[in-house]
Amino acid sequence: MNIVLLGPEDTQSEIWSIHSKRQLQHLREHLDITVGQNLKVGIRNGARYVTEIVSIDEQEVCIRPIREEAVPAKLPVHLIVALPRPKVLRRLIMDSVTLGVEKISLIHSYRVDKSYWQTPFLQQIDNYVTLGLEQAGDTIVPEIQMYKRFKPFVEDVLPTLISETSPAYVAHPYADESMPNGIDHACSIVVGPEGGFIPYEVDLLTKNGCQAVSLGNRILRTETSISYILGRLFS
Amino acid sequence: MNIVLLGPEDTQSEIWSIHSKRQLQHLREHLDITVGQNLKVGIRNGARYVTEIVSIDEQEVCIRPIREEAVPAKLPVHLIVALPRPKVLRRLIMDSVTLGVEKISLIHSYRVDKSYWQTPFLQQIDNYVTLGLEQAGDTIVPEIQMYKRFKPFVEDVLPTLISETSPAYVAHPYADESMPNGIDHACSIVVGPEGGFIPYEVDLLTKNGCQAVSLGNRILRTETSISYILGRLFS
Repeated sequence: MNIVLLGPEDTQSEIWSIHSKRQLQHLREHLDITVGQNLKVGIRNGARYVTEIVSIDEQEVCIRPIREEAVPAKLPVHLIVALPRPKVLRRLIMDSVTLGVEKISLIHSYRVDKSYWQTPFLQQIDNYVTLGLEQAGDTIVPEIQMYKRFKPFVEDVLPTLISETSPAYVAHPYADESMPNGIDHACSIVVGPEGGFIPYEVDLLTKNGCQAVSLGNRILRTETSISYILGRLFS
Repeated sequence: MNIVLLGPEDTQSEIWSIHSKRQLQHLREHLDITVGQNLKVGIRNGARYVTEIVSIDEQEVCIRPIREEAVPAKLPVHLIVALPRPKVLRRLIMDSVTLGVEKISLIHSYRVDKSYWQTPFLQQIDNYVTLGLEQAGDTIVPEIQMYKRFKPFVEDVLPTLISETSPAYVAHPYADESMPNGIDHACSIVVGPEGGFIPYEVDLLTKNGCQAVSLGNRILRTETSISYILGRLFS
Protein backbone atom coordinates (compact mmCIF):
# COMPACT_ATOMS: atom_id res chain seq x y z
CA MET A 1 0.00 0.00 0.00
CA ASN A 2 1.83 3.10 -1.24
CA ILE A 3 -1.17 5.40 -0.90
CA VAL A 4 -4.35 5.06 1.15
CA LEU A 5 -7.36 5.21 -1.16
CA LEU A 6 -10.47 6.90 0.27
CA GLY A 7 -13.94 7.32 -1.16
CA PRO A 8 -15.20 10.82 -2.01
CA GLU A 9 -17.58 10.46 0.96
CA ASP A 10 -14.61 10.32 3.38
CA THR A 11 -13.05 13.51 2.10
CA GLN A 12 -15.86 16.05 2.31
CA SER A 13 -14.70 18.12 5.29
CA GLU A 14 -11.33 19.70 6.11
CA ILE A 15 -10.26 16.71 8.16
CA TRP A 16 -10.49 13.32 6.46
CA SER A 17 -11.01 9.97 8.15
CA ILE A 18 -9.41 6.58 7.44
CA HIS A 19 -11.63 3.97 9.07
CA SER A 20 -11.45 0.79 6.97
CA LYS A 21 -10.17 -2.10 9.09
CA ARG A 22 -7.83 -3.28 6.36
CA GLN A 23 -6.25 0.13 5.90
CA LEU A 24 -5.94 0.78 9.65
CA GLN A 25 -4.32 -2.60 10.16
CA HIS A 26 -1.83 -1.95 7.37
CA LEU A 27 -0.95 1.49 8.75
CA ARG A 28 -0.41 0.03 12.22
CA GLU A 29 1.55 -3.05 11.19
CA HIS A 30 3.63 -1.84 8.30
CA LEU A 31 4.00 1.92 8.58
CA ASP A 32 4.27 2.52 12.32
CA ILE A 33 2.50 5.87 11.94
CA THR A 34 2.67 8.81 14.36
CA VAL A 35 0.76 12.09 14.63
CA GLY A 36 2.40 14.85 12.58
CA GLN A 37 3.78 12.40 10.03
CA ASN A 38 2.97 12.74 6.32
CA LEU A 39 0.82 10.15 4.56
CA LYS A 40 0.03 9.78 0.86
CA VAL A 41 -3.70 9.56 0.25
CA GLY A 42 -5.74 9.32 -2.93
CA ILE A 43 -9.40 9.95 -3.58
CA ARG A 44 -11.02 7.20 -5.62
CA ASN A 45 -11.32 8.55 -9.18
CA GLY A 46 -9.96 11.86 -7.97
CA ALA A 47 -6.72 13.58 -6.98
CA ARG A 48 -3.81 12.38 -4.85
CA TYR A 49 -2.49 14.29 -1.84
CA VAL A 50 0.24 14.47 0.71
CA THR A 51 -1.61 14.68 4.02
CA GLU A 52 -0.59 15.12 7.64
CA ILE A 53 -1.79 12.77 10.36
CA VAL A 54 -3.70 14.76 12.98
CA SER A 55 -4.98 11.99 15.26
CA ILE A 56 -4.77 8.23 15.68
CA ASP A 57 -7.11 6.01 17.66
CA GLU A 58 -8.44 2.45 17.51
CA GLN A 59 -11.33 3.32 15.18
CA GLU A 60 -9.84 5.87 12.84
CA VAL A 61 -6.87 7.87 11.68
CA CYS A 62 -7.62 11.52 10.91
CA ILE A 63 -5.62 13.39 8.31
CA ARG A 64 -5.47 16.87 6.81
CA PRO A 65 -4.57 17.34 3.13
CA ILE A 66 -1.44 19.48 2.65
CA ARG A 67 -0.79 19.52 -1.09
CA GLU A 68 -1.91 17.80 -4.26
CA GLU A 69 0.41 15.41 -6.11
CA ALA A 70 0.37 14.06 -9.67
CA VAL A 71 -1.47 10.79 -10.29
CA PRO A 72 0.62 8.45 -12.50
CA ALA A 73 -0.55 8.24 -16.11
CA LYS A 74 -2.26 5.06 -17.33
CA LEU A 75 -0.91 2.90 -20.14
CA PRO A 76 -3.13 3.25 -23.24
CA VAL A 77 -3.94 -0.46 -23.12
CA HIS A 78 -7.10 -2.48 -23.18
CA LEU A 79 -6.28 -5.88 -21.69
CA ILE A 80 -8.58 -8.62 -22.97
CA VAL A 81 -7.94 -11.79 -21.01
CA ALA A 82 -9.58 -15.19 -20.69
CA LEU A 83 -11.11 -15.49 -17.23
CA PRO A 84 -8.43 -17.20 -15.10
CA ARG A 85 -8.82 -19.67 -12.24
CA PRO A 86 -10.31 -17.92 -9.20
CA LYS A 87 -6.99 -18.18 -7.34
CA VAL A 88 -5.22 -16.33 -10.14
CA LEU A 89 -7.94 -13.70 -10.65
CA ARG A 90 -6.94 -11.57 -7.64
CA ARG A 91 -3.33 -11.32 -8.66
CA LEU A 92 -4.15 -10.77 -12.33
CA ILE A 93 -6.51 -7.87 -11.64
CA MET A 94 -4.27 -6.37 -8.97
CA ASP A 95 -1.13 -6.53 -11.14
CA SER A 96 -2.87 -5.20 -14.26
CA VAL A 97 -4.23 -2.25 -12.30
CA THR A 98 -0.85 -1.61 -10.67
CA LEU A 99 0.82 -1.61 -14.07
CA GLY A 100 -1.66 1.02 -15.28
CA VAL A 101 -3.93 -0.83 -17.69
CA GLU A 102 -6.74 1.50 -18.72
CA LYS A 103 -9.46 -1.05 -19.42
CA ILE A 104 -9.86 -4.77 -18.70
CA SER A 105 -12.23 -7.21 -20.39
CA LEU A 106 -12.59 -10.70 -18.96
CA ILE A 107 -13.77 -13.09 -21.67
CA HIS A 108 -14.81 -16.70 -22.01
CA SER A 109 -12.77 -19.19 -24.01
CA TYR A 110 -12.89 -22.94 -24.69
CA ARG A 111 -10.33 -23.71 -21.98
CA VAL A 112 -12.03 -21.52 -19.35
CA ASP A 113 -13.93 -23.79 -16.97
CA LYS A 114 -17.57 -22.62 -16.93
CA SER A 115 -17.55 -22.79 -13.13
CA TYR A 116 -15.09 -19.88 -13.03
CA TRP A 117 -17.95 -17.55 -13.96
CA GLN A 118 -19.73 -18.57 -10.73
CA THR A 119 -16.85 -17.90 -8.35
CA PRO A 120 -17.57 -15.48 -5.49
CA PHE A 121 -14.15 -13.96 -6.27
CA LEU A 122 -15.80 -12.13 -9.17
CA GLN A 123 -17.71 -10.12 -6.56
CA GLN A 124 -14.36 -9.09 -5.08
CA ILE A 125 -12.95 -7.49 -8.22
CA ASP A 126 -13.52 -4.01 -6.91
CA ASN A 127 -11.40 -4.84 -3.85
CA TYR A 128 -8.62 -6.21 -6.05
CA VAL A 129 -8.74 -2.98 -8.06
CA THR A 130 -8.35 -0.97 -4.85
CA LEU A 131 -5.31 -3.05 -3.83
CA GLY A 132 -3.76 -2.53 -7.26
CA LEU A 133 -4.34 1.24 -7.16
CA GLU A 134 -2.95 1.51 -3.62
CA GLN A 135 0.15 -0.42 -4.69
CA ALA A 136 0.76 1.78 -7.74
CA GLY A 137 -0.10 5.11 -6.10
CA ASP A 138 -2.91 5.53 -8.63
CA THR A 139 -6.49 6.69 -8.00
CA ILE A 140 -8.30 6.12 -11.28
CA VAL A 141 -10.41 2.96 -11.44
CA PRO A 142 -10.06 1.20 -14.80
CA GLU A 143 -13.16 0.12 -16.68
CA ILE A 144 -13.76 -3.62 -16.26
CA GLN A 145 -16.19 -5.63 -18.38
CA MET A 146 -17.12 -9.29 -18.68
CA TYR A 147 -18.13 -11.23 -21.76
CA LYS A 148 -19.37 -14.72 -21.06
CA ARG A 149 -19.52 -15.71 -24.73
CA PHE A 150 -16.39 -15.78 -26.85
CA LYS A 151 -17.79 -15.58 -30.37
CA PRO A 152 -20.13 -12.59 -29.92
CA PHE A 153 -17.32 -10.73 -28.18
CA VAL A 154 -14.80 -11.40 -30.94
CA GLU A 155 -17.22 -10.77 -33.80
CA ASP A 156 -19.20 -7.84 -32.46
CA VAL A 157 -17.11 -6.06 -29.83
CA LEU A 158 -13.48 -6.63 -30.77
CA PRO A 159 -13.69 -5.00 -34.23
CA THR A 160 -15.02 -1.80 -32.64
CA LEU A 161 -11.88 -1.63 -30.46
CA ILE A 162 -9.40 -1.93 -33.32
CA SER A 163 -8.28 0.97 -35.50
CA GLU A 164 -5.18 1.97 -37.44
CA THR A 165 -3.88 3.82 -34.42
CA SER A 166 -4.92 1.15 -31.94
CA PRO A 167 -4.20 -2.41 -33.11
CA ALA A 168 -4.94 -5.59 -31.16
CA TYR A 169 -2.29 -8.24 -30.52
CA VAL A 170 -2.91 -11.82 -29.47
CA ALA A 171 0.07 -13.62 -27.96
CA HIS A 172 0.39 -16.90 -29.84
CA PRO A 173 3.35 -19.27 -29.58
CA TYR A 174 3.35 -20.24 -33.28
CA ALA A 175 3.02 -16.76 -34.78
CA ASP A 176 5.78 -15.74 -37.22
CA GLU A 177 5.83 -12.11 -36.21
CA SER A 178 7.23 -11.05 -32.83
CA MET A 179 5.28 -8.97 -30.34
CA PRO A 180 6.35 -5.36 -31.04
CA ASN A 181 8.31 -3.37 -28.46
CA GLY A 182 8.57 0.25 -27.44
CA ILE A 183 5.35 1.32 -29.20
CA ASP A 184 4.02 4.84 -28.86
CA HIS A 185 0.35 4.25 -29.55
CA ALA A 186 -2.65 2.66 -27.87
CA CYS A 187 -3.44 -1.03 -28.33
CA SER A 188 -5.47 -3.96 -27.13
CA ILE A 189 -3.73 -7.13 -25.98
CA VAL A 190 -5.51 -10.46 -25.94
CA VAL A 191 -4.20 -13.10 -23.55
CA GLY A 192 -5.45 -16.69 -23.55
CA PRO A 193 -6.27 -19.09 -20.73
CA GLU A 194 -3.93 -21.71 -19.24
CA GLY A 195 -3.33 -24.11 -22.10
CA GLY A 196 -3.85 -21.30 -24.62
CA PHE A 197 -6.60 -20.47 -27.09
CA ILE A 198 -7.66 -23.35 -29.34
CA PRO A 199 -6.84 -22.97 -33.08
CA TYR A 200 -10.49 -22.06 -33.87
CA GLU A 201 -10.28 -19.18 -31.42
CA VAL A 202 -6.97 -17.88 -32.77
CA ASP A 203 -8.47 -18.04 -36.27
CA LEU A 204 -11.55 -16.11 -35.21
CA LEU A 205 -9.43 -13.50 -33.46
CA THR A 206 -7.18 -12.94 -36.48
CA LYS A 207 -10.17 -12.93 -38.87
CA ASN A 208 -11.62 -10.14 -36.77
CA GLY A 209 -8.57 -7.93 -36.96
CA CYS A 210 -6.24 -9.23 -34.27
CA GLN A 211 -2.52 -9.65 -35.08
CA ALA A 212 -1.08 -12.95 -33.83
CA VAL A 213 2.38 -12.26 -32.42
CA SER A 214 4.93 -14.42 -30.67
CA LEU A 215 6.55 -13.85 -27.30
CA GLY A 216 9.38 -16.31 -27.94
CA ASN A 217 9.61 -20.00 -27.24
CA ARG A 218 9.09 -20.00 -23.50
CA ILE A 219 5.55 -20.68 -22.33
CA LEU A 220 4.58 -18.17 -19.64
CA ARG A 221 1.77 -18.32 -17.12
CA THR A 222 -1.04 -15.85 -17.92
CA GLU A 223 -0.30 -13.58 -14.98
CA THR A 224 3.45 -13.54 -15.70
CA SER A 225 2.90 -12.83 -19.38
CA ILE A 226 0.85 -9.69 -18.72
CA SER A 227 3.62 -7.77 -16.94
CA TYR A 228 6.16 -9.18 -19.41
CA ILE A 229 4.10 -7.93 -22.37
CA LEU A 230 3.48 -4.50 -20.83
CA GLY A 231 7.19 -4.07 -20.04
CA ARG A 232 7.96 -4.90 -23.64
CA LEU A 233 5.29 -2.78 -25.32
CA PHE A 234 5.70 0.40 -23.30
CA SER A 235 9.38 0.87 -22.71
CA MET B 1 3.55 -28.14 -16.84
CA ASN B 2 4.51 -27.93 -20.51
CA ILE B 3 7.19 -30.60 -20.29
CA VAL B 4 7.78 -33.35 -17.74
CA LEU B 5 11.25 -32.95 -16.23
CA LEU B 6 13.05 -36.19 -15.36
CA GLY B 7 16.38 -36.80 -13.64
CA PRO B 8 19.22 -38.42 -15.60
CA GLU B 9 18.69 -41.54 -13.42
CA ASP B 10 15.19 -42.03 -14.89
CA THR B 11 16.38 -41.95 -18.48
CA GLN B 12 19.14 -44.56 -18.59
CA SER B 13 17.38 -47.34 -20.52
CA GLU B 14 15.38 -47.29 -23.74
CA ILE B 15 12.12 -46.90 -21.88
CA TRP B 16 11.89 -44.06 -19.40
CA SER B 17 9.71 -43.91 -16.30
CA ILE B 18 7.68 -41.04 -14.85
CA HIS B 19 6.94 -41.94 -11.24
CA SER B 20 6.80 -38.72 -9.22
CA LYS B 21 3.41 -38.35 -7.55
CA ARG B 22 3.12 -34.70 -8.53
CA GLN B 23 3.85 -35.35 -12.18
CA LEU B 24 1.55 -38.38 -12.38
CA GLN B 25 -1.26 -36.39 -10.78
CA HIS B 26 -0.80 -33.54 -13.24
CA LEU B 27 -0.77 -35.90 -16.23
CA ARG B 28 -3.95 -37.58 -15.01
CA GLU B 29 -5.86 -34.45 -14.05
CA HIS B 30 -4.84 -31.96 -16.70
CA LEU B 31 -3.65 -33.86 -19.74
CA ASP B 32 -5.92 -36.90 -19.86
CA ILE B 33 -3.12 -39.03 -21.32
CA THR B 34 -3.49 -42.23 -23.33
CA VAL B 35 -1.05 -44.87 -24.58
CA GLY B 36 0.40 -43.94 -27.97
CA GLN B 37 0.08 -40.22 -27.34
CA ASN B 38 3.10 -37.91 -27.56
CA LEU B 39 4.49 -36.22 -24.47
CA LYS B 40 7.20 -33.58 -24.17
CA VAL B 41 9.87 -34.60 -21.70
CA GLY B 42 13.10 -32.93 -20.61
CA ILE B 43 16.13 -34.34 -18.84
CA ARG B 44 17.29 -32.13 -15.98
CA ASN B 45 20.33 -30.21 -17.27
CA GLY B 46 20.10 -32.18 -20.50
CA ALA B 47 18.15 -32.40 -23.74
CA ARG B 48 14.43 -32.17 -24.42
CA TYR B 49 12.47 -34.82 -26.32
CA VAL B 50 9.17 -35.66 -27.88
CA THR B 51 8.33 -39.07 -26.42
CA GLU B 52 5.57 -41.61 -26.92
CA ILE B 53 3.60 -43.02 -24.02
CA VAL B 54 4.01 -46.83 -23.98
CA SER B 55 2.21 -47.74 -20.76
CA ILE B 56 0.20 -46.11 -17.97
CA ASP B 57 -0.54 -47.53 -14.55
CA GLU B 58 -1.14 -46.24 -11.02
CA GLN B 59 2.58 -46.12 -10.12
CA GLU B 60 4.22 -44.98 -13.33
CA VAL B 61 3.91 -43.80 -16.88
CA CYS B 62 6.46 -45.33 -19.27
CA ILE B 63 7.63 -43.43 -22.31
CA ARG B 64 9.98 -43.93 -25.24
CA PRO B 65 11.95 -40.98 -26.67
CA ILE B 66 11.16 -40.33 -30.35
CA ARG B 67 13.16 -37.24 -31.27
CA GLU B 68 15.14 -34.46 -29.68
CA GLU B 69 13.82 -30.89 -29.57
CA ALA B 70 15.54 -27.55 -29.00
CA VAL B 71 15.71 -26.27 -25.42
CA PRO B 72 14.77 -22.56 -25.27
CA ALA B 73 17.73 -20.20 -24.82
CA LYS B 74 18.24 -18.46 -21.49
CA LEU B 75 18.24 -14.69 -21.10
CA PRO B 76 21.78 -13.45 -20.35
CA VAL B 77 20.65 -12.06 -17.01
CA HIS B 78 21.84 -12.37 -13.46
CA LEU B 79 18.92 -11.48 -11.22
CA ILE B 80 20.02 -10.14 -7.83
CA VAL B 81 17.01 -9.80 -5.59
CA ALA B 82 16.40 -9.05 -1.91
CA LEU B 83 15.04 -12.21 -0.26
CA PRO B 84 11.24 -11.83 -0.40
CA ARG B 85 8.62 -12.96 2.10
CA PRO B 86 8.37 -16.77 2.13
CA LYS B 87 4.95 -16.61 0.45
CA VAL B 88 6.38 -14.63 -2.45
CA LEU B 89 9.57 -16.71 -2.77
CA ARG B 90 7.91 -19.60 -4.62
CA ARG B 91 6.40 -17.42 -7.27
CA LEU B 92 9.48 -15.26 -7.64
CA ILE B 93 11.79 -18.23 -8.23
CA MET B 94 9.29 -20.03 -10.44
CA ASP B 95 8.61 -16.97 -12.63
CA SER B 96 12.28 -16.00 -12.93
CA VAL B 97 13.16 -19.51 -14.03
CA THR B 98 10.23 -19.62 -16.46
CA LEU B 99 11.33 -16.33 -17.98
CA GLY B 100 14.82 -17.77 -18.54
CA VAL B 101 17.00 -15.98 -16.00
CA GLU B 102 20.48 -17.57 -16.11
CA LYS B 103 21.56 -16.95 -12.54
CA ILE B 104 19.76 -15.83 -9.38
CA SER B 105 21.32 -14.35 -6.24
CA LEU B 106 19.13 -13.86 -3.17
CA ILE B 107 20.60 -11.14 -0.96
CA HIS B 108 19.95 -9.57 2.39
CA SER B 109 18.86 -5.94 2.71
CA TYR B 110 17.77 -3.65 5.54
CA ARG B 111 14.07 -4.22 4.86
CA VAL B 112 14.40 -8.02 4.62
CA ASP B 113 13.14 -9.51 7.88
CA LYS B 114 15.93 -11.67 9.32
CA SER B 115 13.41 -14.45 9.95
CA TYR B 116 13.02 -14.93 6.17
CA TRP B 117 16.44 -16.61 6.14
CA GLN B 118 15.10 -19.30 8.47
CA THR B 119 12.03 -20.22 6.42
CA PRO B 120 11.67 -23.87 5.40
CA PHE B 121 10.63 -22.56 1.98
CA LEU B 122 14.32 -21.97 1.27
CA GLN B 123 14.75 -25.78 1.29
CA GLN B 124 12.09 -25.95 -1.43
CA ILE B 125 13.88 -23.77 -3.96
CA ASP B 126 14.90 -26.72 -6.04
CA ASN B 127 11.23 -27.71 -6.38
CA TYR B 128 10.27 -24.17 -7.40
CA VAL B 129 13.01 -24.30 -10.05
CA THR B 130 11.56 -27.56 -11.40
CA LEU B 131 8.09 -26.00 -11.64
CA GLY B 132 9.53 -22.99 -13.47
CA LEU B 133 11.43 -25.16 -15.93
CA GLU B 134 8.40 -27.39 -16.57
CA GLN B 135 6.27 -24.30 -17.25
CA ALA B 136 8.78 -22.82 -19.70
CA GLY B 137 9.71 -26.06 -21.45
CA ASP B 138 13.30 -25.55 -20.30
CA THR B 139 15.67 -28.13 -18.80
CA ILE B 140 18.69 -26.15 -17.63
CA VAL B 141 18.77 -25.37 -13.91
CA PRO B 142 19.95 -21.81 -13.25
CA GLU B 143 22.67 -21.19 -10.69
CA ILE B 144 21.20 -19.90 -7.43
CA GLN B 145 23.23 -18.36 -4.63
CA MET B 146 22.46 -16.72 -1.30
CA TYR B 147 24.25 -13.86 0.40
CA LYS B 148 23.10 -13.23 3.93
CA ARG B 149 25.11 -10.01 4.29
CA PHE B 150 24.44 -7.03 2.06
CA LYS B 151 27.67 -5.06 2.34
CA PRO B 152 30.15 -7.87 1.64
CA PHE B 153 28.04 -8.91 -1.35
CA VAL B 154 27.91 -5.40 -2.80
CA GLU B 155 31.56 -4.56 -2.11
CA ASP B 156 33.23 -7.88 -2.88
CA VAL B 157 30.97 -9.86 -5.22
CA LEU B 158 28.99 -7.31 -7.25
CA PRO B 159 32.04 -5.57 -8.80
CA THR B 160 33.24 -8.93 -10.16
CA LEU B 161 29.92 -9.32 -12.01
CA ILE B 162 30.03 -5.94 -13.75
CA SER B 163 31.95 -5.24 -16.95
CA GLU B 164 31.65 -2.92 -19.93
CA THR B 165 29.69 -5.59 -21.78
CA SER B 166 27.62 -6.58 -18.74
CA PRO B 167 26.37 -3.63 -16.68
CA ALA B 168 24.24 -3.86 -13.54
CA TYR B 169 21.00 -1.92 -13.13
CA VAL B 170 19.19 -1.22 -9.89
CA ALA B 171 15.55 -0.19 -10.22
CA HIS B 172 15.16 2.99 -8.19
CA PRO B 173 12.07 5.22 -8.27
CA TYR B 174 14.02 8.49 -8.01
CA ALA B 175 16.67 7.80 -10.64
CA ASP B 176 16.90 10.33 -13.49
CA GLU B 177 17.77 7.80 -16.15
CA SER B 178 15.17 5.29 -17.39
CA MET B 179 15.72 1.54 -17.38
CA PRO B 180 17.03 0.76 -20.90
CA ASN B 181 14.98 -1.33 -23.32
CA GLY B 182 15.71 -3.77 -26.10
CA ILE B 183 19.35 -4.33 -25.07
CA ASP B 184 21.51 -6.90 -26.87
CA HIS B 185 24.03 -7.67 -24.16
CA ALA B 186 24.21 -9.44 -20.82
CA CYS B 187 23.41 -7.62 -17.58
CA SER B 188 22.68 -7.95 -13.90
CA ILE B 189 19.50 -6.51 -12.46
CA VAL B 190 19.18 -5.67 -8.79
CA VAL B 191 15.68 -5.62 -7.31
CA GLY B 192 14.96 -4.40 -3.79
CA PRO B 193 12.63 -5.71 -1.08
CA GLU B 194 9.08 -4.54 -0.39
CA GLY B 195 9.50 -0.92 0.67
CA GLY B 196 12.65 -0.64 -1.46
CA PHE B 197 16.33 -0.35 -0.66
CA ILE B 198 17.22 2.31 1.91
CA PRO B 199 19.25 5.32 0.62
CA TYR B 200 22.47 3.90 2.14
CA GLU B 201 22.00 0.71 0.13
CA VAL B 202 21.30 2.52 -3.13
CA ASP B 203 24.43 4.61 -2.51
CA LEU B 204 26.56 1.55 -1.85
CA LEU B 205 25.19 -0.15 -4.98
CA THR B 206 25.93 2.82 -7.23
CA LYS B 207 29.39 3.34 -5.65
CA ASN B 208 30.15 -0.24 -6.57
CA GLY B 209 29.25 0.13 -10.21
CA CYS B 210 25.48 -0.28 -10.36
CA GLN B 211 23.46 2.15 -12.51
CA ALA B 212 20.33 3.44 -10.76
CA VAL B 213 17.51 3.51 -13.31
CA SER B 214 13.83 4.34 -13.07
CA LEU B 215 10.88 2.19 -14.10
CA GLY B 216 8.43 5.10 -14.13
CA ASN B 217 6.28 6.48 -11.38
CA ARG B 218 4.21 3.41 -10.55
CA ILE B 219 5.43 1.36 -7.62
CA LEU B 220 5.40 -2.33 -8.57
CA ARG B 221 5.53 -5.37 -6.33
CA THR B 222 8.89 -7.18 -6.50
CA GLU B 223 7.50 -10.21 -8.31
CA THR B 224 5.58 -8.08 -10.83
CA SER B 225 8.60 -5.88 -11.51
CA ILE B 226 10.83 -8.81 -12.49
CA SER B 227 8.73 -9.92 -15.48
CA TYR B 228 8.08 -6.26 -16.37
CA ILE B 229 11.84 -5.51 -16.39
CA LEU B 230 12.71 -8.64 -18.38
CA GLY B 231 10.02 -7.86 -20.97
CA ARG B 232 11.47 -4.39 -21.30
CA LEU B 233 15.16 -5.31 -21.43
CA PHE B 234 14.98 -8.23 -23.86
CA SER B 235 12.41 -7.31 -26.46
